[in-house]
Amino acid sequence: MPRPLQHPASADISIAAVLYALSDPVRAAIVRELTKAPQGMNCTEMNQRLGLKLAKSSCSQHYRILRDAGLIFCARKGVELFSRVRTQELSEKFPGLLRAIMAGYEAGHRD
Amino acid sequence: MPRPLQHPASADISIAAVLYALSDPVRAAIVRELTKAPQGMNCTEMNQRLGLKLAKSSCSQHYRILRDAGLIFCARKGVELFSRVRTQELSEKFPGLLRAIMAGYEAGHRD
Repeated sequence: MPRPLQHPASADISIAAVLYALSDPVRAAIVRELTKAPQGMNCTEMNQRLGLKLAKSSCSQHYRILRDAGLIFCARKGVELFSRVRTQELSEKFPGLLRAIMAGYEAGHRD
Repeated sequence: MPRPLQHPASADISIAAVLYALSDPVRAAIVRELTKAPQGMNCTEMNQRLGLKLAKSSCSQHYRILRDAGLIFCARKGVELFSRVRTQELSEKFPGLLRAIMAGYEAGHRD
């Protein structure tokens, strides 16, 4: 049996961990794409969507940091891991934060 | 003559660097206190305000990261360094971001 995936409870999500997790442009792009796919998305699809060639280990590491920070919820389906953004909990806990961050990255791409 | 202080131009402030700088609770607290002191504040006053006993080197390191990220503007007055938050530039570039982050830290303190 694979190890169960750990997720922080909503009350334990810290703003410091969220900011650190999203201070990496690749992780921020993963969250942006996951937000558009509420049914979840696995690593392979994500790589295709972002035009990235991340090694499986780098991909796992990014997902782990996002999961530990409380930004995404991951579930195993067979050998694949499907992830979705914890949008509702995050918007209740940190109103306006995700939107402001995503807009900030968007603005950077337009420069 | 001391080295001149380097500050990124507004166009070069990146969301990634801003998020990384504010992912440290001490740096976020420094920005929060500086926001309340538009005339600026030096390291000694900041330590007193925050009830911290940061070594001068740690304090300088925090200020340097905040300055390099474009969050604060620093100016020498004699041997002291006075800093202020680049509030207007930041709110034009990343609307709602600083407010959402500061509110997130506030909420964490209340938990």
